[in-house]
Amino acid sequence: MVPRQTATVRIELDLSDDPADYVFRHPVRVRFAETDAMGVVHHSAYVPFLEEARVEWLRALGHPYSELRDEGIELAVLELVVQYRRSARFEDVVVVHTRVSRFRGATFQIDYLLTVDGEVAALGATVHGVVDAAGRATRAPAWFKQLMTGPS
Amino acid sequence: MVPRQTATVRIELDLSDDPADYVFRHPVRVRFAETDAMGVVHHSAYVPFLEEARVEWLRALGHPYSELRDEGIELAVLELVVQYRRSARFEDVVVVHTRVSRFRGATFQIDYLLTVDGEVAALGATVHGVVDAAGRATRAPAWFKQLMTGPS
Amino acid sequence: MVPRQTATVRIELDLSDDPADYVFRHPVRVRFAETDAMGVVHHSAYVPFLEEARVEWLRALGHPYSELRDEGIELAVLELVVQYRRSARFEDVVVVHTRVSRFRGATFQIDYLLTVDGEVAALGATVHGVVDAAGRATRAPAWFKQLMTGPS
Amino acid sequence: MVPRQTATVRIELDLSDDPADYVFRHPVRVRFAETDAMGVVHHSAYVPFLEEARVEWLRALGHPYSELRDEGIELAVLELVVQYRRSARFEDVVVVHTRVSRFRGATFQIDYLLTVDGEVAALGATVHGVVDAAGRATRAPAWFKQLMTGPS
Repeated sequence: MVPRQTATVRIELDLSDDPADYVFRHPVRVRFAETDAMGVVHHSAYVPFLEEARVEWLRALGHPYSELRDEGIELAVLELVVQYRRSARFEDVVVVHTRVSRFRGATFQIDYLLTVDGEVAALGATVHGVVDAAGRATRAPAWFKQLMTGPS
Repeated sequence: MVPRQTATVRIELDLSDDPADYVFRHPVRVRFAETDAMGVVHHSAYVPFLEEARVEWLRALGHPYSELRDEGIELAVLELVVQYRRSARFEDVVVVHTRVSRFRGATFQIDYLLTVDGEVAALGATVHGVVDAAGRATRAPAWFKQLMTGPS
Repeated sequence: MVPRQTATVRIELDLSDDPADYVFRHPVRVRFAETDAMGVVHHSAYVPFLEEARVEWLRALGHPYSELRDEGIELAVLELVVQYRRSARFEDVVVVHTRVSRFRGATFQIDYLLTVDGEVAALGATVHGVVDAAGRATRAPAWFKQLMTGPS
Repeated sequence: MVPRQTATVRIELDLSDDPADYVFRHPVRVRFAETDAMGVVHHSAYVPFLEEARVEWLRALGHPYSELRDEGIELAVLELVVQYRRSARFEDVVVVHTRVSRFRGATFQIDYLLTVDGEVAALGATVHGVVDAAGRATRAPAWFKQLMTGPS
């Protein structure tokens, strides 16, 4: 008997809700366009918040995303998880805290803690694949891995 | 010693990539607005596809979402996971297959299989909490649980 | 004295609110993600509705947008106007009526009438520029102009 | 003979492309989610940029939007026009310049100039209606009119 095929999800869900466990923070002011008819931020609107935070993180580290592209590297999103804890509202400032929790040769995971006024609004993680211009999986450049994981 | 507090994620990630394991299917034509500068559907754009599919599912079952609201019930999204397998493109028809994989008193999980031309594009799941008008967790109405899980 | 430079807007605002003045109609079901905290469809969400309608129109005419691209043609949006009349809501079906109101060599205008349950929800127009792969203005292919403006 | 009924559009299209004609400026960094498969910012993505700029303008004036709501006032968008001049791209900083160009009792127009690196990217305008909690047109509070139009 062949077992039913199921998805192998790479995300490891040990998401810390302690800001001290994260190394970068980026504030995002909620747009009215991001709210929904329940009066709160629509759950899909958080996904671009995560993206904005990781892009700003690279810029803050001195290596904007365009540098990766100049090396022929793209970072594809392979997996996404978000756990919603407390609704955010129009004009709230959502602080997105980020860290790299795993880095293998061609994939890495970023964890996110989202807070509003110091309260946990959401937790999340994305797994990224390093791909070349043709979309093939490739090893991350050494400088990039070092940048994201810090000296060790 | 107290272990570091981490998120308890309710999503169970046994997502089948066999369409036969799903009970409803809803096609979504990709808008140009949903593509990104990599030439494919942006990863955040799939989240409204999942929402549209579950709303259409309820309507197809004869109980549009407004009926839940008329009973003072809202379905909050508590957790979201998406695994991206193959990029979709402008004008592609993404078929979203759905099923309920778990239903407890006040929470339930919907699984999603997204295909384009019969190929797996993505897998996903959402965990929903049944809440009353004041946002408090409440048990799902019996008719709704029966509707989503079928006769048994 | 040189007058202050101001924008020359090409849109001509004689937008008919009579469905009989339009030649194509395309229904769009409102997603919950498209609502806002006022409980209605956010004004920005109508813009992709217009886009979806014109893409479907081309497909209905037997010439999907990809055919234009295969000829090295893109249609850039140069101008946009929307007049909001009556709010649409979650699960409403917005019917987008379209027509070409002007077609010059390298630009053309599409008018839109949006109705919900037969009532006018919004009116709009977009001016498009025909550009080649390098982004330069170019004349529309004859078949395309004929397609959009009909036999005459 | 009765002339065909057409829309009366209130927007006056004398949009200046001189930053000196505007009184407030707000920068918006382009998200990757806001790009499209042409490699540039999708035309619909500018609409939330305009909204974000006017909300930030009110906050900068010391009267966040929530103050209006506390007085039972909402600002509905009645009309929108955008003229696209030059594409913006991922990671560009779009500076949105704003001014009030007209203020009548219950409606007012905001003009927008959008620049990237000092070059005009787009021009736009929105007409807003002042409405009470029941959605009825009402006169703007005196303090709000004064705030938006300045001393005179």
